[in-house]
Amino acid sequence: MNVNSALRALREYLGQVEDLHAATSLLGWDQQTYMPPKGAEARGLQLATLSGLSHRIFTARKLGALLARLHDVREQLDPDDAKLIDETLYDYERAKRLPESFVKEFAEEQSKAFHAWIKARQQSDFGLFLPHLEKLVGLSRWRADLLGFEGLRYNALLEDYERGARAEDLRGVLATLAARQSEIVKCIAQTPVRADLGWLNQQWDEAAQWAVSIQILHDMGYDLEAGRQDRSAHPFTTSFHLNDVRITTRTHSDQLFSGLLSSLHEGGHALYEQGFLAKDARTTLAHGPSLGIHESQSRLWENIVGRSLPFWRHYLPLLRERFPGQLETVAAEEVYEAVNQVKPSLIRVEADECTYNLHVIIRFEIEVELLEGNLVAGDVPSVWNEKMKSYLGVDVPDDARGCLQDVHWSHGAFGYFPTYTLGNLYASQIFEAVLKDLPDLWQQVENGSFLPLRDWLREHVHRHGRRKTAADLVREISGTPPGAGPYLRYLEAKYSSLYGFPAPIKRKAPASPR
Amino acid sequence: MNVNSALRALREYLGQVEDLHAATSLLGWDQQTYMPPKGAEARGLQLATLSGLSHRIFTARKLGALLARLHDVREQLDPDDAKLIDETLYDYERAKRLPESFVKEFAEEQSKAFHAWIKARQQSDFGLFLPHLEKLVGLSRWRADLLGFEGLRYNALLEDYERGARAEDLRGVLATLAARQSEIVKCIAQTPVRADLGWLNQQWDEAAQWAVSIQILHDMGYDLEAGRQDRSAHPFTTSFHLNDVRITTRTHSDQLFSGLLSSLHEGGHALYEQGFLAKDARTTLAHGPSLGIHESQSRLWENIVGRSLPFWRHYLPLLRERFPGQLETVAAEEVYEAVNQVKPSLIRVEADECTYNLHVIIRFEIEVELLEGNLVAGDVPSVWNEKMKSYLGVDVPDDARGCLQDVHWSHGAFGYFPTYTLGNLYASQIFEAVLKDLPDLWQQVENGSFLPLRDWLREHVHRHGRRKTAADLVREISGTPPGAGPYLRYLEAKYSSLYGFPAPIKRKAPASPR
Repeated sequence: MNVNSALRALREYLGQVEDLHAATSLLGWDQQTYMPPKGAEARGLQLATLSGLSHRIFTARKLGALLARLHDVREQLDPDDAKLIDETLYDYERAKRLPESFVKEFAEEQSKAFHAWIKARQQSDFGLFLPHLEKLVGLSRWRADLLGFEGLRYNALLEDYERGARAEDLRGVLATLAARQSEIVKCIAQTPVRADLGWLNQQWDEAAQWAVSIQILHDMGYDLEAGRQDRSAHPFTTSFHLNDVRITTRTHSDQLFSGLLSSLHEGGHALYEQGFLAKDARTTLAHGPSLGIHESQSRLWENIVGRSLPFWRHYLPLLRERFPGQLETVAAEEVYEAVNQVKPSLIRVEADECTYNLHVIIRFEIEVELLEGNLVAGDVPSVWNEKMKSYLGVDVPDDARGCLQDVHWSHGAFGYFPTYTLGNLYASQIFEAVLKDLPDLWQQVENGSFLPLRDWLREHVHRHGRRKTAADLVREISGTPPGAGPYLRYLEAKYSSLYGFPAPIKRKAPASPR
Repeated sequence: MNVNSALRALREYLGQVEDLHAATSLLGWDQQTYMPPKGAEARGLQLATLSGLSHRIFTARKLGALLARLHDVREQLDPDDAKLIDETLYDYERAKRLPESFVKEFAEEQSKAFHAWIKARQQSDFGLFLPHLEKLVGLSRWRADLLGFEGLRYNALLEDYERGARAEDLRGVLATLAARQSEIVKCIAQTPVRADLGWLNQQWDEAAQWAVSIQILHDMGYDLEAGRQDRSAHPFTTSFHLNDVRITTRTHSDQLFSGLLSSLHEGGHALYEQGFLAKDARTTLAHGPSLGIHESQSRLWENIVGRSLPFWRHYLPLLRERFPGQLETVAAEEVYEAVNQVKPSLIRVEADECTYNLHVIIRFEIEVELLEGNLVAGDVPSVWNEKMKSYLGVDVPDDARGCLQDVHWSHGAFGYFPTYTLGNLYASQIFEAVLKDLPDLWQQVENGSFLPLRDWLREHVHRHGRRKTAADLVREISGTPPGAGPYLRYLEAKYSSLYGFPAPIKRKAPASPR
C-alpha cells in the first residue's frame, strides 16, 4: 500500500471510529435530555455495548498495521498528517493496554453506579452508593495498573483528562492556590457587606431566562444552525461533529443568573468544538488537547467575560425588557456585584470564583488517597466533611450536599476534577494575551460585540485541535509556561476592587476592569 | 460448548446487535426531531457507518457457528429458544447474501438521496431527485439479485417488509380492492352532500391539540414513562427497547383532527412495540413478523377506533374544554362525519379510507415495473400522473404533490407501500375477532375505556413478537386465511351507512356502528 492509500485508509478508519463515538455521545445526550425514565436500564446496556465495540474497533490490528506503516514514513508526511499519526498512535497504544472485557465491565458498572448514585443523592443515603464506589475505585486502580504510571497511581488516570499532568505537581499548585485564595476569602469576610442584593429575591420567568440565554449564545457566535440548547438536570456540552455541537442548561425560577452563566459556560465549550478545522472532522485531531484547555474556554466566557461589569452593562437593558418592572432600579454595578458574591458554601457548581478551587482540592486529595489505597470508600463522607470544615469552614449537613453532590465518581471519573482548576489557570493566562492583542476588548464587550474575542480564540486555540499539547499551547500564547500567577493576579485585582480591600501585590492590567 | 452456554452466548451476541440497532434508530430519531440543520451531512456518514457495522457484526462467522451448533440440537430446545434460532438463522442467511461494501454503499446513497429528495420536493423539481432514484433503483435491482427471488424481482424486496408475500398475489388482491373501492367512491360521489363542515374552518390552538393527543395516548394505554411524543415533519414510531418506544406527530393550526389521528396511528404502533415480552427484549423475537401486521395495529387504532362515532362521543367533551367556545354547537355525529369525509385527493397520507388503497396500487405498479426494468426512473412522473387520473380521477398539478410526495423511494424502500394496504386488511380481519371476544367494545370506547382492547391485542398479537408469521397470526386469530373480505365488509358497512347508500351486500356486525 502506498503512503497516500494508507493515509486515505487511516482517515476512513478513524472516520468510522469517530462515527461510533458520535453515536455513543448521542446515547448519552439523549439519556440526560429526552429519554423516558424506564429507558434507563436498556440505555446502560447500549452504552456498554457501544463502548466495548468502539474499543474493539479502535484497537484492531488493522489500525495498528496502518499506523505502523505510516509511522515508518513519518518524515515524508506533511506536518498535519504526521501529527495525526502521532496522536492516533498515542491513543492506540494506550487503548491496547485495556482488554475489551475490562472496558465493557467498566461501562456496565458506570451505568449501574450512575443509577445508584441518583437514588443515593435523592435520599442522601451514602450506603446506597458505597458498594458501587468501592467497585469503581477497585476497577480504577486496576485500570491504572493496566495503563501504567510513574509516581502516584493517580497519574495514570489524570493522563486521560490532562495528558502530561502529574499529581505531584498539582499538589504544589493547589497548595499555593489554597493559601492565596483563603487569604482573599478572609479579606472579603472582613469587609462590611456593601450591596443590598434583596432585589435578587424575585421570581424570574423561565421562558424569559431561556430567551436571554439564546440571545447571549447567539451574540457569542455560537452557531445555532450547527448546535442547540436543551434542558437537563446537569448542564453539559456534547459534540457529534463540528457541525452538531450541543449544550444543555437548566433554569430555576428563583435564580436569575445561574442558568444564564451556565449557558455562557457551556457556550464556551461549544465554541471550541465548533471551532475545529473542517478538514480535521472525523479524525483524532478534532478534539482539545486536554480537559483543562477545554475548561479554559468555558471559564473564560463564564467568569472572565460573563462576570464582568462591561458584560452586564450591555445585557442589563435586555434583562429589563425581558423581565418588565423587575429591574428598573437595579444598576449594572449591582448586577456585577450580584454575580460575584463570595461566600464559602457547600456545593461546588454553585461556588464563586474565590472558593471554587478549594472544592477541587478536597476532591483531588480524596481521590489520590482512594487510588493509593490509603483511604477506603466507606470513610469518604467523614473525610469529606472534615476537609470542608478545614478548607471552607463549612459544616456539611448531609451527604447529598456533601460527598454525593457530584456525578463524576459515579462514572468512575477519578482524575477529572483538577482539570477544572487548570481550566481556571489556563483561562486567565490566555486572557492576558487576549488583552494584549485586543486592547479594546472591554469596550467591545460593553457594545455586545463578542466576535473579535471568539475569532481570537478560534485563531489561537480552537483551530489547533490536538496539534499542540496543553502546556505548549499556553506557553506559545502567553510566552510563559502554565502557572498560577495570572489567575491569582486576576482574582486579587477583581475582588480587591469589588470588595474594597488592598490587593496583596500591586498589579497592572486588571483582567476585568470596574 | 454445551447447549446452555451456546444459548447464553447467542443471547449476549444478539443483545449487542440489538443495542447497535437501537443506537442507529436513535440517530434516525434525532435526525427527524432535534438535529440542527447543519448536522445532516455528518449524520448521513454516521448512519452509514453504523449500518455497515451492524451488518458486519450480524454476519460474523462467530454468530453463524453458534446458530449452526444450536440448530443441530433444535429438537432439544424449548419452543421459544427453537423459534429464536429459526428466526435468527433466517435473518442471518439473508444478511450473508449482501456484502458489507454493498450495505454501506446503499446506506450512503440513501442519505444523499434523502437530502436530494427534500430539496426536490421543496422546489417540486423531479430532476434533482432523478439521478438518485436511478441509482437506488439500480442498487435495489442488484440487491434483489443478491438476495434471490422466484417470479418477479420485486418479491426479493417485498420479503424484507412482508415475509412470504408475493407480488403476483398482491396484484390480485389490489385489483379486487381497486374495483370495489372505486364503486364505493362512486356511490359516495353520487350522494348529495349532507353535512355542513364549515365549523372545521377555524384556528385550533396547537398546544391544546398536543394536550388532547397526550390524553388520548395515555387513555389507549401507551406507557409515557416508557415512551414519549415529539414533533417531526413526518410522523413515525421508533423503538430502542420495549421500555423506550417513541412516537412523533405534527400539528397544524388549521386542522383539528390530522394531528390527533396521527397520534392515534403512531400510538397503535407504539403499543405493539411496548407489548413485546420482557424476556424477548434485545433478541430477534422482539419485533413484529411483518410491516403489514405492524400497520394493522396503527390502522386499527387510527381508523377503526379513532374514526368511529363512539370514540368521538367520548372525546367531544374534552375537545370542547380544550377549545372553549369553538365546538359548542357541534355534535359527535358531525365530528364523525368530519373525520370520515371521502374525496379523491392528491396526497396519500391525507387520503380517506375509501381511496387510500388506490394510492398504494399506483406506487406498487410503478415499483414492480421499475424493478423489472420495464420502466425507467425518468418516466415515473408521467406514469404517476396517468395513474392518478385513471384510479382517482385527479389531475396532478406538480411533482411535489405527485411522485415526490413520499419519503420511501429516497430510502430505496421499494416494496414497502403494499404493507399499508395489508395493514388495512389485517386490521379489519383482526377486529372482527376482537368484536367476538369483546361484544361490549363500542360501549367501552364510548366510556373512554380502551384497556380491554389494548390487552386483547397484547394477548393475541403483541406478545407473540416474531413467533408467528403474519399469515399464521391472522389465521389463528380469525379462523380464516388473510383476505380482503373483512376490510371490504367494514368499508361498505361504514360508508353506506354514513353516506346513505345501500350496502352492496347485506352484512351483519358492522365494524363501527353509528
